[in-house]
Amino acid sequence: MRPLILISNDDGYEAKGLRSLVDMVRHLGDVLVCAPEGPRSGQACAFSATTPLMLTLRAEEEGVAIWSCNGTPVDCVKMALAELCPRKPDLVIGGINHGDNGSVNTHYSGTMGVTIEGCLKYIPSIAFSLCDHHADADFEPLRPYIMKMTERVLREGLPQGICLNINFPLQPAFKGVRICRMAKGTWYNETMKYHHPRGYDYWWMVGHYRNDEPEAEDTDNWALSNGYVAITPTRVDVTAYEAMDMLKAWNF
Amino acid sequence: MRPLILISNDDGYEAKGLRSLVDMVRHLGDVLVCAPEGPRSGQACAFSATTPLMLTLRAEEEGVAIWSCNGTPVDCVKMALAELCPRKPDLVIGGINHGDNGSVNTHYSGTMGVTIEGCLKYIPSIAFSLCDHHADADFEPLRPYIMKMTERVLREGLPQGICLNINFPLQPAFKGVRICRMAKGTWYNETMKYHHPRGYDYWWMVGHYRNDEPEAEDTDNWALSNGYVAITPTRVDVTAYEAMDMLKAWNF
Repeated sequence: MRPLILISNDDGYEAKGLRSLVDMVRHLGDVLVCAPEGPRSGQACAFSATTPLMLTLRAEEEGVAIWSCNGTPVDCVKMALAELCPRKPDLVIGGINHGDNGSVNTHYSGTMGVTIEGCLKYIPSIAFSLCDHHADADFEPLRPYIMKMTERVLREGLPQGICLNINFPLQPAFKGVRICRMAKGTWYNETMKYHHPRGYDYWWMVGHYRNDEPEAEDTDNWALSNGYVAITPTRVDVTAYEAMDMLKAWNF
Repeated sequence: MRPLILISNDDGYEAKGLRSLVDMVRHLGDVLVCAPEGPRSGQACAFSATTPLMLTLRAEEEGVAIWSCNGTPVDCVKMALAELCPRKPDLVIGGINHGDNGSVNTHYSGTMGVTIEGCLKYIPSIAFSLCDHHADADFEPLRPYIMKMTERVLREGLPQGICLNINFPLQPAFKGVRICRMAKGTWYNETMKYHHPRGYDYWWMVGHYRNDEPEAEDTDNWALSNGYVAITPTRVDVTAYEAMDMLKAWNF
């Protein structure tokens, strides 16, 4: 049987990044897309506890079916696994995201939500992101990397509980691929205040990013700023084992 | 100057768990609450990229101010830090959540979203949850524990990048406190299908939880099922360092 690849994202089923990804991996297996109806950036691992969810078939051709769901990226994966997949997928992919998901963005990213959800379901899972948030970003330079990486993970799997967060720098040609850790970074000046004509204040969530360890060459931020593709292996067991002894000594 | 404690949650500013928490810790410092207008369970680290945010002062008395925000739990923390806090908080607390945030719920929990956001801003941060989702759950048995734990973290801080996910079992009296790791667990049967009178299908996200390592006595699930309070130290650097050598050998 051909491998089954489940794809979702947080930019919506019509996003160029998702369509490009489908085109890059469809020769490797059957592809089932279940992606949000529209943009869901910053949705992290959110799921819809109180909203009824609906599915719409948007396109179907040989080996590729594209569904949309009105929920979050994680809803899309859960719905696809429960309602759409004819068998357990061999691989879950989030992306290709329009924008950088390195460093702390890991925690906010809906693309990573897709990937963490796949990993929590014990399925090898990858997130692909390009550091270009434009709707018409050029994903073609990523093709040979994504084909090779997807093929490898399909063939060999990943250790249980570990998924891959793969980010591509803005400018090709890429200098190579680096295995990275998450940089420490901070979003600051995150709110912008406006005054509504009806007489109240409201705010837009915006923000600027600061890399708090710009010299650290083993980080994803460093790799991306220096032209390298960054692969950050990512755990779903977020226990801080190194703090256990200290806490045991607190004797609560 | 008195310590400043920032509190939020994912059950909304009117929730009993939040009000109980304020009552338990207000003697330790000034308390600023900024919590969602209503329930936001399952919102994880989601923030509002496209929704204008508003703040409403709901109550103010000596040493305690209670604000609501129309956004997610993470929005509440970001808005409080940027717009409401007179100084950088000494502590961020999420909770007390009505319901279990152990194991994989860490990834979905808006209460943990609050705590991770505080930790990403380099502020010592704690999540408190009680394994009782009822609106009128009894939080009083938690009081001596929460007072002691909050006081300790205020005094000694926490290692940078590590926050605490603290869950209380359903039934007091508690047998003690255990320092735990996240159990491996799985949500299954997560969708329930209904038929709308207008002729289409929709689904509610529900689900049942299975502990995939019920015998593991070092896990949060085990502690909670056996009457112990579970403290799980939690990292914001989710890099899977143990997978780096394997990935380097893949030679992409």
